[in-house]
Parts: sequence; structure tokens; C-alpha cells
Amino acid sequence: MASGDSERSEPVELDWPIDRPELLPFLPLVQTAWADGILTEAELEALRVHADAFPWLDEKARGHLASWLQPECPPSAQSLARTASAIRTLGRRVPPEDRGSLTDLGVGMARQAQDGPWAAEAARPPLRAMERGLGVAGAEAVRALLSEPTPPVADGPPEREAPFDVETMRRFLDRPHEGLRRRILGLLATEALQIPDEAERAEYRERTLAAIRKLADEGLGALAYPEEFGGSGSPGQSVAAFETLGFGDLSVLVKFGVQFGLFGGSILQLGTRRHHEAYLTDVGSLALPGGYAMTEFEHGSNVRDIETAATFDPERDAFVIHTPDEGARKDWIGNAALHGRLMTVFARLLVEGQDHGVHAFLVPVRAEDGTLAPGVSIEDRGAKEGLNGIDNGLIRFDHVVVPRGNLLDRFGGVGEDGRYRSPIPSAGRRFFRMLGTLVGGRISIAAASLSATKTGLTIAVRYSSRRRQFGPSGGAEWPILDYLTQQRLLLPRLATTYALHFALRELVDRYDAGPAGNDERDARETEVLAAGLKAYASRHCVETLQACREACGGRGYLAANRFGRLKADTDVFTTFEGTNVVLLQLVAKGLLSEYREEMGDLKLFGALRWLAGRAETRITQMNPVATRRTDEEHLLDPDFHEQGFHYRQERLLASAAGRLKGMIDDGIDTFEAMNRCQDHLVTLAEAWVEHQALLALHDAVRRAPGPGLSELLRTVGQLFALERMEAHRGWYLESGYFEPGKSKAVRMQVNALCGELRDLAPFLVDAFGIPDDVLRAPDGAR
Amino acid sequence: MASGDSERSEPVELDWPIDRPELLPFLPLVQTAWADGILTEAELEALRVHADAFPWLDEKARGHLASWLQPECPPSAQSLARTASAIRTLGRRVPPEDRGSLTDLGVGMARQAQDGPWAAEAARPPLRAMERGLGVAGAEAVRALLSEPTPPVADGPPEREAPFDVETMRRFLDRPHEGLRRRILGLLATEALQIPDEAERAEYRERTLAAIRKLADEGLGALAYPEEFGGSGSPGQSVAAFETLGFGDLSVLVKFGVQFGLFGGSILQLGTRRHHEAYLTDVGSLALPGGYAMTEFEHGSNVRDIETAATFDPERDAFVIHTPDEGARKDWIGNAALHGRLMTVFARLLVEGQDHGVHAFLVPVRAEDGTLAPGVSIEDRGAKEGLNGIDNGLIRFDHVVVPRGNLLDRFGGVGEDGRYRSPIPSAGRRFFRMLGTLVGGRISIAAASLSATKTGLTIAVRYSSRRRQFGPSGGAEWPILDYLTQQRLLLPRLATTYALHFALRELVDRYDAGPAGNDERDARETEVLAAGLKAYASRHCVETLQACREACGGRGYLAANRFGRLKADTDVFTTFEGTNVVLLQLVAKGLLSEYREEMGDLKLFGALRWLAGRAETRITQMNPVATRRTDEEHLLDPDFHEQGFHYRQERLLASAAGRLKGMIDDGIDTFEAMNRCQDHLVTLAEAWVEHQALLALHDAVRRAPGPGLSELLRTVGQLFALERMEAHRGWYLESGYFEPGKSKAVRMQVNALCGELRDLAPFLVDAFGIPDDVLRAPDGAR
Repeated sequence: MASGDSERSEPVELDWPIDRPELLPFLPLVQTAWADGILTEAELEALRVHADAFPWLDEKARGHLASWLQPECPPSAQSLARTASAIRTLGRRVPPEDRGSLTDLGVGMARQAQDGPWAAEAARPPLRAMERGLGVAGAEAVRALLSEPTPPVADGPPEREAPFDVETMRRFLDRPHEGLRRRILGLLATEALQIPDEAERAEYRERTLAAIRKLADEGLGALAYPEEFGGSGSPGQSVAAFETLGFGDLSVLVKFGVQFGLFGGSILQLGTRRHHEAYLTDVGSLALPGGYAMTEFEHGSNVRDIETAATFDPERDAFVIHTPDEGARKDWIGNAALHGRLMTVFARLLVEGQDHGVHAFLVPVRAEDGTLAPGVSIEDRGAKEGLNGIDNGLIRFDHVVVPRGNLLDRFGGVGEDGRYRSPIPSAGRRFFRMLGTLVGGRISIAAASLSATKTGLTIAVRYSSRRRQFGPSGGAEWPILDYLTQQRLLLPRLATTYALHFALRELVDRYDAGPAGNDERDARETEVLAAGLKAYASRHCVETLQACREACGGRGYLAANRFGRLKADTDVFTTFEGTNVVLLQLVAKGLLSEYREEMGDLKLFGALRWLAGRAETRITQMNPVATRRTDEEHLLDPDFHEQGFHYRQERLLASAAGRLKGMIDDGIDTFEAMNRCQDHLVTLAEAWVEHQALLALHDAVRRAPGPGLSELLRTVGQLFALERMEAHRGWYLESGYFEPGKSKAVRMQVNALCGELRDLAPFLVDAFGIPDDVLRAPDGAR
Repeated sequence: MASGDSERSEPVELDWPIDRPELLPFLPLVQTAWADGILTEAELEALRVHADAFPWLDEKARGHLASWLQPECPPSAQSLARTASAIRTLGRRVPPEDRGSLTDLGVGMARQAQDGPWAAEAARPPLRAMERGLGVAGAEAVRALLSEPTPPVADGPPEREAPFDVETMRRFLDRPHEGLRRRILGLLATEALQIPDEAERAEYRERTLAAIRKLADEGLGALAYPEEFGGSGSPGQSVAAFETLGFGDLSVLVKFGVQFGLFGGSILQLGTRRHHEAYLTDVGSLALPGGYAMTEFEHGSNVRDIETAATFDPERDAFVIHTPDEGARKDWIGNAALHGRLMTVFARLLVEGQDHGVHAFLVPVRAEDGTLAPGVSIEDRGAKEGLNGIDNGLIRFDHVVVPRGNLLDRFGGVGEDGRYRSPIPSAGRRFFRMLGTLVGGRISIAAASLSATKTGLTIAVRYSSRRRQFGPSGGAEWPILDYLTQQRLLLPRLATTYALHFALRELVDRYDAGPAGNDERDARETEVLAAGLKAYASRHCVETLQACREACGGRGYLAANRFGRLKADTDVFTTFEGTNVVLLQLVAKGLLSEYREEMGDLKLFGALRWLAGRAETRITQMNPVATRRTDEEHLLDPDFHEQGFHYRQERLLASAAGRLKGMIDDGIDTFEAMNRCQDHLVTLAEAWVEHQALLALHDAVRRAPGPGLSELLRTVGQLFALERMEAHRGWYLESGYFEPGKSKAVRMQVNALCGELRDLAPFLVDAFGIPDDVLRAPDGAR
């Protein structure tokens, strides 16, 4: 900007008569008045010296003073610099307890030279009046005058001692399967698992393949498979492994998931004994690399309407797999472009002209030497925003023939008589059973999202507690984590990460145990929670990594500090394994139908009718008596938090049910009605996930080893709960659960909790237990 | 999840006696009941056939019915598929007007076969009771039964005609300097300006250099410089050029900005005539590549405390530039690692032992042949998250000697007598004058942020209006932009982009015109607005690009669709040229001091005292009479929006002033007090920017060429205003400006406006005027 540079006139060289002690008391006032180089009318007025107030000033002294107080003839830069230097020299001789204001400093300076008229107490009030007139805070103005232009470069603060047992917390977080996690962290520190940032795509893909081969060799690929096929029969161990791999290269993680989770998992869960025997051992050892071909070019979320056809040909006793048009090409298939040999392909099963809906088929796509199978053509998906170690591809099938036995027939198959049979009569219900294979994937993505989030927070919190910038005048620069906005950027996200950590643990426990006695509702709840946590944790991951990058400023932009790749790699977590907005609607439908197994939109209406009535009653009973309470004891009470989260969930549920029912009663299509309150349903789903996370965190408070850790986690829970309530305060105010005063009190309490957790934060990230040789971020090292 | 697969028993092969018309009316009911493969108690109860209701059913018919209604023996998949097929065949013969419910459909099917007892009107009520008992919406259930399992693949909708003159809107947006913009878009479509995604870093950097050489050859580098040095003397043209380059490769953009904006701009604005004559022509033609070395390793935002020293040596009549320690290395300097030869280096000026604060010096760092100058060492900053076409470096100076004339001495210099002189006596004030050079950079980053945002929105809106996924039962799939969550993801951001576009235009006009009559307040307002818009637009850009990536699902993850690089390149916009949180505090301070020129924290106190009192009065006068109004006329009224935004800004300002004053009165340091309400100050700053943007948009409504465009922009303004009010509804409710009912009404109105803008959105992005050969995103092509 070509801003005006003409000052009112040339500055004037002036000398303050330092050798005249009777003028010294005015020097700090005058110097402060000139601090911004302009003398305003108000300042002039304040500094007007009344002869009768200081009768001992002679004509010459008054002349000196006046020469410094001419707005049209400011003192020169040199003059101001000289007086600044003089004030520092003389002022520091005044005892600190006598420097409380500009008046005290000035008088102190004069008295250092001589005990003249300024020794009288009566000399000060008129000076004080002048100081007030300047409108500055005295003590601060004194500090500004006495400090050097460059603040002292502070040594780092003394290493703070951990206020809790970090190692015990780490082990509490690492349960279960702590040993397995430590073993994998050891592997992640080795060269085979660390792919240089600069590797080009072709090399990156080969290194990624080599890395998962290493993991397979270590027996980690087969963990979820039965022992007879080289595994441990433990879905829980499998998730723990995936979660820990989430601290390393995310292409390796995702390729691992494609091969052992999706490909192997589909054979395990959709196939029957003979499929397990034929393939699982080779899948787990990576002797047979494969993939999971569900998504199509024009059919992403809407899997039910995929077009790839698998037509049973009784003559050949085989299926003919065919891609009818461009839109039906299998898209984004991991391991397809280069390494996969066998694919689990989802296609519509057609028998005797009858469409039995989506089923899964094992289709060889490539021989061991890399030659494509007849009728198969594959296009490399090329460069992506991230995860470039994965060889995604587009696959087209041109009448590819596979034997009848290649249908993974646990939920439906074709008999030797060429007739279709299924233990599940309803096509819709069968479809959702098959999609059940996605639950493990969703849990895994939730887990990996949290690991990447922990990596980001570890780097950003450590950097922020060390990096100093700005500070009070005359003092050392502050670590940037001392700033409220930095705390608000990082600490609530840290608390949320802890809450989601425990929510994930509970989900994995459920998943590992399987549904109680084949209880459908139980199985469905696990599915809903997996969908909800995947969506919530992946969103949390994307937002937190962005916040962490920004929290580290330019340093966060360096590739070496990993945020660039972390963000690019995890971005798609919000999309794959079910795009978040679709998953959250699935959660909402689960809640609206009270976990009744998927039934399409059609029968939701009945559930709504029932729910809309019942829920109103339930909510009326939840009388929010505490609307006005703003005392700290109440605001920090975990019971208040649980009640508040529960109230929100129930009320959102009831109002969604009511709105939907009303619209359907008015003849609006369920699909259209759901769309009209889609934002409402998504909000409901998120509120439910947050409630689950709060309950899991409170449960962890109860289970924590030792009162110190319980206390700490309680504080973490308070920040999580209140920050979420603050984020939703619009809703709480609308619904009458908060009064305005309470809403404000919640906000101030969040600030207070941020301050409380500020010193604990570096230790809370230490407890994530990511070794420096796995973290590999120069500015994040411990 | 190993979910239970044991059904209650083996499904049973059943045949519905299609040839017995008296049973047909029950078929749709029974089939619907089995839709999810489970018969609940409620459904059984509903379907219990009372003999007296249907006296014409014989024993055998009742037996048939009963065989289909045994929860423990469900019909087989084959049986259900057969009846589904039969219903489709028979049901479609029933005239559409007679298919309003399952009852109507069933009776209609029966009457197609024979006019038996079902012809009587009295036969229907008991069927209707059964249907109600199933709890389904009848018409919808009928559609579900009659539709094919695979919905018809819809042809695209007929090309919609633009409901407004897109070309006129484009030209309205492109004002001023439309010709220049079109010329640059033409250049961006050429090979020289399009660097392949896959270029490696070394190649990318050379291509970037070649690209800005091309732009310099076109005379675009010097636009802001006086005509005698090859320019147009037009800061406005310079910003227009930068804004348009923001549609292309962002490394090219930033290198362009470093060379011509920061390096050349610093010479223009901090130097005097002889510097201009010596350098500007060569800078503008790129004959002299250079850089702008302000930031240090340990001193990012806190420029005032940089440590690099420039000590005047009277013997040599020269300055000795020196890096005292590791923390003082110049960091992130663009053009430093490879191409820069001369740098504007910011250093503390030391003359006769006196520290005169930060000044700028021209320091040669490298000869034409690339050899480093004596005493200069440079480290390559290496790989970054994005902008890898820029050769950032770390520079260290070891007693580098430069002639006295190399001090850019517009605001302060050393005379031949070796004494320091400055037209600005106060060091603090001088410092902020020098930082004024950053204003142009901040405006440019705001402009580039908006261009990148427009690129993202163009791709995402076009993709979303074409991509189809899911749909009502029996209907075609919907374009995903028809979904409310997708609309909410994109359309308010589109509206905000329009608002910021016009706010930027006003800012650039002010910047181009220069302050009115050297009015300080005016200059300061421009600075504050530049800081605010830079922060707001760069945040908006980061969030919008993320939203757009997600809106495009997997397709958005393809490198070819550009989101990966766009996000990575723009991420640092929130950090460089002043990190956002610091800029927003600068805005807040500007408001608190009423644009008084920067004066440090010290004298803020006086301003606060005055402001806290005055503002309370102003707000009391703004009586929110409309607290309860929820009618559409009121909610859509631009006056209501302006009043609401203004109220928010004023109240946040008054309460911030009051809080700060209270703390300082209590003896808290201003710095500490500012930190305790840092979140409040940031909120205030954002509220102010939003208010400015709303006013600018409303002004555009008045200026728009033609009532059609005015009307359209008014709607855009309504969405911008109400969505922001919705986002801040917690605050409006807390402050009593909204009552709960109004808050809800605002939310519903935002949904309605999203629906209204949905069809307009593709044309609103067309009006951004980005040609396909510049957009270069396969899924974003027009």
C-alpha cells in the first residue's frame, strides 16, 4: 500500500537535560506519551504542567518540557533512542518495589540523583493525575520502558516432571494385546517398513508390497483367521495390529487391509469350509495376493445397484462374470493394477433368468507371471492425492467364466441341480448380511484414523510446548501452547481422541466376542457403532491433522514433519469403506428402528409411529432441572455431562421420528422425507456417537489403574464433554436445556479446563507411546 | 463380524396359488410383510384373517394363507422371488390410478382375473385395517413391489437452460481489468504454464522458473511498478493478475508473488528513488531474480524480535550483516535455494551501539553463475507438503558486508555523517510502517485463496449435479446435489465465496486508490481489512477445498481432479504472510483502537476505557425488536441481515473492550489480558469480516447489471447471511437477539434456500469463468 509517509514536519534533535533531576520525574511520562510517535490532544492535555502544582520548576525547566511536547515538532528518532537508553540506565537503579508506576519510577530516578523537592509525598498526586490522563497501565508501562528492545532469549523452562505415571497410562491405553502392539512398533522402526518420502510411485508400490510381505512373514496377516490356516482366530488381535500399523506408512496399512482384511476376510466370512481350506493359508502368507472388487465406476455407495452380472450357465456348470457397460467397471480396486491374482468380485447373481441380488465370486484376474486372465482387462488408476503405494485399478470383465464353486456361498448358492438356495429368504436381508463383511473394515478405519490423529497430536503438542513466540513486554517469549487459541485448537481434540480411543476399545471387544448368543440386535448394534465410529473418527482425524499442521505453522508444512502425507493419506478415510454421510444415515436408521435388522425404508414407518410417541414421553420425564446452574461443581459433574448428552440424543431421535412420521403421513415418500431431514439425521447420529464415547471414557475413569489416572481421565472427560456441549450450545439453547448464562459459563469453563490441561498435554501425548523412531518427525521428537 | 447365520429353520418351498383370485388381495400384504425376511408379532397380528370379515374364503384358501404366515418356516428365497415376479406382472395390469395402496393393488389384481366378491366396496375396509397394521406407507409399498430389482438407469436430465445471463454475470465478476484477466487465462491454457503433476521436484522448480519468466516476458511482473520501470503503476492490475494466476499452478503463482510482489514490492515501497532506478526494471523483467528474507528460524510471527544484525561500520561506510545464532537463520525464503541473487533482508539496524529496530537491506547472495556470495550459506528447505515448485531455503550470513546505500531507507537510514535519521521518530511506528509492505501480499493471498476456492467449487458442483446415487424405490437415482447434506456442504460455501469476492473487490479498489489524502485512519482500515480478508479467505479456502474433495467422493481423490495438490498448495495460505490467528488479533486490535495506528498494547488501555463506555450505549440503542419474528419476509430481508451482523460485531466489540478493561483495571498485564480473551478477539475479528462481506455483497446487488442478476445475488446474499447466522446461533441465542423459535426458523430457511439455489449452482460456478483448459479436471469439465 502506498501509505502516506509525509510526517507533520521534520523531527527535531532534542536533548533531555538528564543532569537536571527536577525534570526526571516527567521523563517516563513524556517518553511513554511518544511511544507511538504521535501526541494526541488527550495526551497533551494530560501532560500540561500546572505551575502551581510544581512550584519548584523554574522558567528554563518549563521551557525544556515544552520543547518535548510540540506535536508539530516531534523529537527525532535519535533523541527518543537516547532518552530510552537513559531511562533504562537510571530506572534500573531504582529499587524494584519503588517502580510500580510511571510516577514512582520518575520520582525514584530523581531521588537517586538528589533528595530535592520530589522527596515530599505531596509531589506525587499531580504526577499521578498526569499518568492517569495518559490512559496507560502504570506497572506495564514501566516494564516496557525498562526492558531491552530485544527480549532476552529465554532458556527452555526446567524439564517439567510428569504429574502422573505416563508409563502406566500408556499400558492402560495399549490394552489389550500390548505385547503384539509393542512388537509391531518394533517392526515399524525397521527399514523395511519405512518408505522414503521421495520414492516414486512405481518404487513406492513395490516397497509397499515388500512391506506387507514382511508383515505376512511375521504372521501378522492371518491373525483373524482360524489357527488351522496360520492365524490366531482373533479379530481383536487383527484390529490391534491394524491400529498399530496406523502409526506407520499408511499405504502399507491400507494394502495390508486390502489383502488380509477385505480379500481374506471376504473368503472367511462369505465363503464356506472348502473356500477356507483352498485359500486362507495362501492369502495370509501372501502367497496369493488378491483384492476386493465391490465398488463400480457409477456405483459407489449404492452397492445394491451394482451392475456386474454373474449369470449361471447350467451347461458349463459355471458362472459367466460380465461387465455390461462402462459404468459397471470395478473401480478403485486395491491390488488390481499390479499385484492381485484373485479377486472377490461382487456381482448380481442371475439364475434361470431370476435376479437374486448381489453375491460374491472368486475371480482369477492374473497369473503368477502377471499375465491377465482371458476376458479381464485392467486400467491403472494412476496418481492419487495420497496412498500412492497402493496399485488401485479399474477392472472390466468380458464374459469371464468361473466354476460354480467360486461363488462364496455361505448366504446363498447354486446347487448341483442348478437351482438357487439361500438360508435367508429375503433378498434385502441377505444383501445386508453380505455387507456385514464391511464391519471389520470400518472398525479398522476407525482405529487407523485414531492412530494417525495421535501421531499428529504428538507432533503438534510437543512442538507447541517448545516453540516460543511473543510475550509480555519485558518478559521472555511464551511457548505457543500457553496461548488460549492454541490450546483451543489442540486440547479439546486431544480430549476427544482419548474419548474415541476408549469407545473404540469397547467396540473391538464386542466385535471380538461376537454377538451374544447370535443375538441379532446385538450384532446390529455392533454394525451401527462401527459405522458411527468410522465416520466420526475419520472426520476427527482429518480435522485434527489440519489443526495440528496449522498449529505447527511453517514447520508443519515441511514434508519431514509428516503432516502433508498424513493428511493426504487419511483424507480418503472419510470416503472409503462407506462414505461418512451415508454411514451416519445408516446409524440414524439403526436408532430409529431400534437396531432392527436392515429392512429398507419401507417398514421404517411402523417403527417411527411407535417411536415418535414413546420418545416424547421419555423426554418429558427427563426434566432439565439444571437449566440455570452455572456453578463449577455442577458444570464439571460427569453426571451432568451424561444427562446432557443423553438428553440431546433422545430429543434428536424423537424429533426426527416425529418429523419423518408427519411427512410420511402427509403422503411424502420415505426416501424424500429422509432427505428433507438429512441434516437432522446426521446430527442425531453424531450425537449418539458422542454419547457412546462419553460413556466409554467414563467407564475408563472407573477402570483406570490408580486414582491418579482416574482423576486425570476425569479431567480429560470434562473437557471433552463441555467442549462438545459448547459446540452444540445453539441446540441446547434452542431446546431450553441451557439458559444463556449457562451457555456462557460452559464456554468459560472450557477455557479454564484448557488451562488446566495445558501442562498435562505433553504427557498425555507421551502416553500414546509412539517411539521417536516410528514418529520420525524432527519437530515432534520427545 | 462373525454374525450368526443360523436362521430359525430351513426355508420352505411354497407356491402361492396365483390361479385362485380370491387369495390375490392378500398377496401384496404378505409379500410386503416378508420384505425383510422376518415376520414380527405385530405383523402376524395384523395379518390374522378373521373368518367373518371374508366369509367367501374356504378352508383350503385359509390353509394356503396360513402356510405363508409361519415365522418359524419362512418361504424360501425362490418362493419369494417367484411371488415378487408374479406381483410385478399382475400388478402392472392394474390401472395406475387404482394402485394407491396395497389393498387397492391386491383387489385390482383379483378383479383383473374375475369380478368376484372383491368387487364389493365392503371387502376393502378389513384389508385396509390389515395394511395399517403393517405400518407401511401404502403408495410407497406399492411402488416397491412393482419396480424392477435394478432401477432403470436414467438418462441424464435434459440440459437445463441457464435461468440468468451467465456471461453478463461473469463479466460483472471479472471487473475491473477484464481484458487482463482473459489474457492471463489464455496464457494459463498454454503448455508453458501447465506443469505436469508428475514432475519431480528439481524439474518442477525449473519449470516454475520458466513459467514466471514467460509471465515476465508478457510484462505481467512489473504491473505494479511505475511506467518508467516497465510497469503500469497499477497495484489493482497487479492484484487482478495474481488473482487470475490463482486458477493455475500455485507454485508458479507463489514464485511470481515472491519475485515481483515481495522482492520488487519491498524495493518499491521501502526503497527510495535510487533503488528504484537501480533495480526495478531488472526485477520486473526477471533479469534479477531475488527474494524477501524476513522470517527467521525462531522468529516467525514475531518479526519485531528478529535477531539478524546489520551493524553500521563507519570505517567501511557499510553494513555488516550477521546471523548471530541458529535461531536467526532466515527461514523459508522463496527463491533462496536456487534462483535468487539479491535478497531484501530484514535485520536490526545498529548504529553507534544504538539499536534502531528492524530495517530492510539489499544483500547479494549469489552471482549470476550460481556461486554463493562470500559469507553467505544457504540450505535447501527440501520437500514440503505443497508448493514444491518453490525453492525455499534457509540463509545464514557470516559478517557479510554491504554498502551503506543498500539500506532501503525510505523510513530511516544512515547519513553520510554516519548518523541515523528517520522521518518517523517512534521505533514502534516505524516498524509498522515497514510491515506495510505486507499489505499487498495479504491482499494477494486473499485473492488467490478465492481463486483456488472457485476452482474447487466449479469441479465439485458440476460433478455433484451429474453424479447419481440412490433414489426413491422404483425411481431413477438422484443427482447427489439433490441431497440436502450435499447442498449444505457446497451451497453456503458457494454463497460465501460470492460475498468474499465482492469484499475483495472493494478492498482492492481502496488499495489501488491509496489512502484518501494520506489519511492515516483510511490507510489503517485498508491494512486491517487486508489482514482480516487474508485470514478469512484462506480459512474458507482450506475448508471449502476439503468439502469439495469429499463431495466428489473417490473421484475427488484422483490426482487428475486436482484436489490433492490444490489442498496441499493452499494449506500454507493460512500460515504465510501472517498466520491467521495473529492477523485476526491484529484486526481486533484495529477495531478496539478504532484504527488508530499501531501503538503496541500499552496505549490500548486508554482506547478501551473510552470504547467500553461508548459501545454499551450504542448497543442499547440497537434494540432487537425482531427477536421473535420468524416469517419468511422478515428472515429473507437484507436489512435484518445487516442489522444482525452489525449487532453481533458491535456487541462483541463492546464486550471485548469491557472484559479487557476490567482485567487491566485489576492489574493484569495487557498481554495476559489479551490472551485470556483471545478466542473472543478472534470471534470479533471474524464477525467484522463477515459484516464487511455482507455489505459488499449487498452493494453488488445494487450495482448488478440488470434486475435478474440483482435478484440472483440477493438470494445468494440471503443464503450467506442466514447460514452464518445459523452457524452463530449459539451466540445470537445467548445474547437474546434470537429466541429459540427464531433460531429454528433460520435453520429451516437455510434448507429452503439451499433447495432454491440447487438448480442455479451449476450456472453460478460457470460465471466464475474458468475455461476447461485451465480447470483441467476430468470430472469438472463444463
